[in-house]
Amino acid sequence: MEIELLVIPEWVITVNSRNQVLHHHAVAVDDSRIVDILPVSEAEKRYRPRQTVVLAQQALLPGLVNAHTHAAMALLKGLADDLPLMEWLQNHIWPAESRWADAQFVYDGSRLAIAEMIRSGTTCFNDMYFFPEQTAKAVQEAGIRACIGLIVIDFPTAWGTGPEDYLQKGLALHDQVADDPLLTTAFAPHAPYTVSDDPLKQVSHLACEMDMPIHMHVHETAFEVQQALAQHDAVPLARLDNLGLLDKHFLAVHMTQLTDEEIALLAEKGTHVIHCPESNLKLASGFCPVAKLLAAGVNVALGTDGNASNNDLDMLGEMRTAALIAKAVAHDASVVSAAQALRMATINGATALGLADTIGSLEIGKAADMIAVDLSALETQPLYDPVSQIVYCANRNQVTHTWVAGKALMTQRELTTLNITELLATAQAWQQKIGATS
Amino acid sequence: MEIELLVIPEWVITVNSRNQVLHHHAVAVDDSRIVDILPVSEAEKRYRPRQTVVLAQQALLPGLVNAHTHAAMALLKGLADDLPLMEWLQNHIWPAESRWADAQFVYDGSRLAIAEMIRSGTTCFNDMYFFPEQTAKAVQEAGIRACIGLIVIDFPTAWGTGPEDYLQKGLALHDQVADDPLLTTAFAPHAPYTVSDDPLKQVSHLACEMDMPIHMHVHETAFEVQQALAQHDAVPLARLDNLGLLDKHFLAVHMTQLTDEEIALLAEKGTHVIHCPESNLKLASGFCPVAKLLAAGVNVALGTDGNASNNDLDMLGEMRTAALIAKAVAHDASVVSAAQALRMATINGATALGLADTIGSLEIGKAADMIAVDLSALETQPLYDPVSQIVYCANRNQVTHTWVAGKALMTQRELTTLNITELLATAQAWQQKIGATS
Repeated sequence: MEIELLVIPEWVITVNSRNQVLHHHAVAVDDSRIVDILPVSEAEKRYRPRQTVVLAQQALLPGLVNAHTHAAMALLKGLADDLPLMEWLQNHIWPAESRWADAQFVYDGSRLAIAEMIRSGTTCFNDMYFFPEQTAKAVQEAGIRACIGLIVIDFPTAWGTGPEDYLQKGLALHDQVADDPLLTTAFAPHAPYTVSDDPLKQVSHLACEMDMPIHMHVHETAFEVQQALAQHDAVPLARLDNLGLLDKHFLAVHMTQLTDEEIALLAEKGTHVIHCPESNLKLASGFCPVAKLLAAGVNVALGTDGNASNNDLDMLGEMRTAALIAKAVAHDASVVSAAQALRMATINGATALGLADTIGSLEIGKAADMIAVDLSALETQPLYDPVSQIVYCANRNQVTHTWVAGKALMTQRELTTLNITELLATAQAWQQKIGATS
Repeated sequence: MEIELLVIPEWVITVNSRNQVLHHHAVAVDDSRIVDILPVSEAEKRYRPRQTVVLAQQALLPGLVNAHTHAAMALLKGLADDLPLMEWLQNHIWPAESRWADAQFVYDGSRLAIAEMIRSGTTCFNDMYFFPEQTAKAVQEAGIRACIGLIVIDFPTAWGTGPEDYLQKGLALHDQVADDPLLTTAFAPHAPYTVSDDPLKQVSHLACEMDMPIHMHVHETAFEVQQALAQHDAVPLARLDNLGLLDKHFLAVHMTQLTDEEIALLAEKGTHVIHCPESNLKLASGFCPVAKLLAAGVNVALGTDGNASNNDLDMLGEMRTAALIAKAVAHDASVVSAAQALRMATINGATALGLADTIGSLEIGKAADMIAVDLSALETQPLYDPVSQIVYCANRNQVTHTWVAGKALMTQRELTTLNITELLATAQAWQQKIGATS
C-alpha cells in the first residue's frame, strides 16, 4: 500500500496505556495520521512509502504537550529575575506589557516561542495571552498545534476594554479558527484575583454549552489564597466550585496550595491540574503536591509557563524537574517515575485539552504528532533504559525531528516553516526597544 | 609583549568580588595564567598573541567547579532510577559496584565523565571513589583539573581491605601526584554511617597536619540523622565536631537536615557545604537550606553528585536547579540570584577546595581555567542580562570552548584530548556487560 511516510527509529516509545517501548518497529503515516505501528520487516513488505526516515540513533515519541504558556512573553525572557510573583507582576511584567504588548509584540513573541518549542520537541501548546488572534496567526504559519486561550480579565488592556469586550473578541476568534484541524480554543479567565463573579459565570455557562476547556491560574501562591479568604470569605477553589466552574472542562494551573479535601474535590469533579514546576520554584510560589494528586486519580499535565518566569519553554527540562521535585516533596523517590513524567508531558496534557483521541501517544488512528530524540550522545550513554535517558539525561539539542500532523516542522534540527535569522533579528529589535527603557 | 593567547569575547563575566561583567574586553593568557584583562583596543596595542580567539557571540566565564562527584559512576547512569537512597545504595548501586567496580571500570567511567564535564563547561571536579589512582590517571591524560578523594570506608572492597589499607594507598597517591599542578587530593571518608571513630580521628589529624580538605557525605537524609541518634546518641554533625573534624578543611556534602544551631556552628567553624540539589531531589533526600546557610556566612558550593543519582554532570543545569529550588525552599524569590548561583558554581567551589587563589574567577594572576558560552541561540535571545541567560536559559550544548590552565580542552565543541568515538565504544561495551546481568 502506498503511504506518505515511514519512520524507522531505534525505539518507538508509545506512551500507550501499557507504556510500551518497541524495538525494531516502524511507524507508518498517511494523510496526517498514524496508520500503522509494526515490525520493520513487515512494514517493508506491506507499505510503499513516498518517504522513509531511518533514525538509527533515535527514539520516536509523541510530541510534547506544553499545557500552560504565554508564548508572546518570549520577548520578556530574563527581563526581571529573582523577584516574588506580585512584585514581578505589578512592578515589572504588567508595566512592560502595558507599554509594549501590542499586536506586533504578540505576533513576534509567539513566533519566537513557537520556534523554541519546535526545537525542543513540543508539538502542541496551551496558550493564554492578549491579542490571541496574533498567536493563532503565528501558529497557523508555523504549522504547530495549539489551544488558544480566549483571555478574560477585569481590567482594560491594549487588546480590549473589559470582560464583555474580551469575550466577544474571543468568541469571534473561536468561530474564525473553527475549521482549522490544528487549532482549538479555551476560555482563559486569567486568575481568581483578576476576574470577578459575573464574567466567571458567563465563562462557565459558555464552556458547558460549547464543550470547551477553561484555562485559569488557580492557587498559585499562599498569598492568593489568604487574600481571597479575607475578601470573599472563601478560598479561590471553593469560590470557583460555587460558581460551577470545576468539572472536566476545567484546567487549574499551578495549584501549589491544596488541602487533602481539595484534592478529593478535584478528583471527584474530574478537574485537571496543570503543574508548572520551574515557574513555581522561580517565583517561590510553592510546591504542587503532584504525587498526592496522581494517587487521588487527578489528571496532572505539565506546562512551562511563560518565558519570563522559567526562563525556557523546554518540556524535556520541565519533565526532568517535575520528576525530581515530586520525589522530594513526597519524601518518596519512587513517585513520578521517568515513565510517569513522560505521560504528564504528553497524554495527560492531551487529556486536559480534550484532545486525547487525537494526540498524546503514538497509536494507530492518532495524528502523527511525533518527535525524535537522538540518544547516541555521550551524555545519554551507556543506555540501560531509553525513557530514563530522555527524562533524566537528554537535553533539547538532542531533539532532531518534530512532526505535527505528519508534516515535518524540524528535520535534523533545521526548522522548515520558520526562519531563525529573521526571528533573531526581530528579537534583537525588541530587545533594543524594551531594554532601553527598563 | 608576546603572549600565548588573547581571547576576545562579547562579555567577560569575571565572578570577581564585585561580580563585574565587562564589555569590549579581552583576556590575555600566558604560561597557563591570566596575565591581563583589559579593553580590546588596549589589548591590541599591548600584546602580540601567538593565538587570538574572537568569540563574538560568547560570554567568557571562569570554568565551573563541580564540588562533589563520583566520576566513575558514569557507567551506571540510569541503571536504577526512582528509588530511595538506601534501597538504591544497598540493593542496586553497592551490588553493581561490588561486581563491576575494578580498576578498568574506574578508568573508563572517569574518562566518560570527564568528557561530559569538559563538554558542559566544568574545568575542575572534586571526586570520591575507589581506585582513585585510575581517576587521577584519566584526569592527567585529559588535562582537566581535579581534587582526587582518598576514600576511607569501614568495609573491604576490590580496592582495599579496610581503613588502614585505604589510607595507606591514598597517601601513596597523594605523594605520587604532589608535583602535578592540576591535581590536588582530599581525604574522603565516605559518610558518618560507613566510617567509624578511629579512622575519622586519623583523617582529622592528617588533614590538619597536611593542610588538606576532608570531603564527606553528611546529613544527606533524615534517616541518617535518626539512625545516628539511636546508635551514637548524637547526630552525625555533633559526632564529627566531637572528633575535631569541623573546620575550614571540611567539606560537608548534601546537608539536607540542619537546625539553625547547626548552621551557626558551620559558620563559626568555617566548614564548607557542598550542595547537590538534583541528587537530593532525585533520591528524595530533602532540601538543603541554602539561603539560610548563605545568610549565615557559610561558603556553599555546588556539585552534581555521580551520574547514577542525577543523571547528568551538567553544572549549568545544576546552577539553574540550585537557583530555582533555593527560592521555593526559602519562600523568597529574591534569594540565590543568577549571579549568586554562578558564584556557587565557580569561586565558592574553588574556596571549598582551598584553590581560591588559583581558580574560580577570571582575575589577573589566576590560572586560565575558562569557558565560553554562546548566547546567540534563539533560546537565549532576546538578551537583557548575560548572567541571567547563562543560569536560566542556556544549556550545555551552548558551551563552545573549555580551557584549563590555558590549554584548550574543547574548541568549537570539539574535544582536543579525548576521542569520543572511542569513549562511546567503551561505554557500550560496559553497557552490554552490566545490562546483561541487572
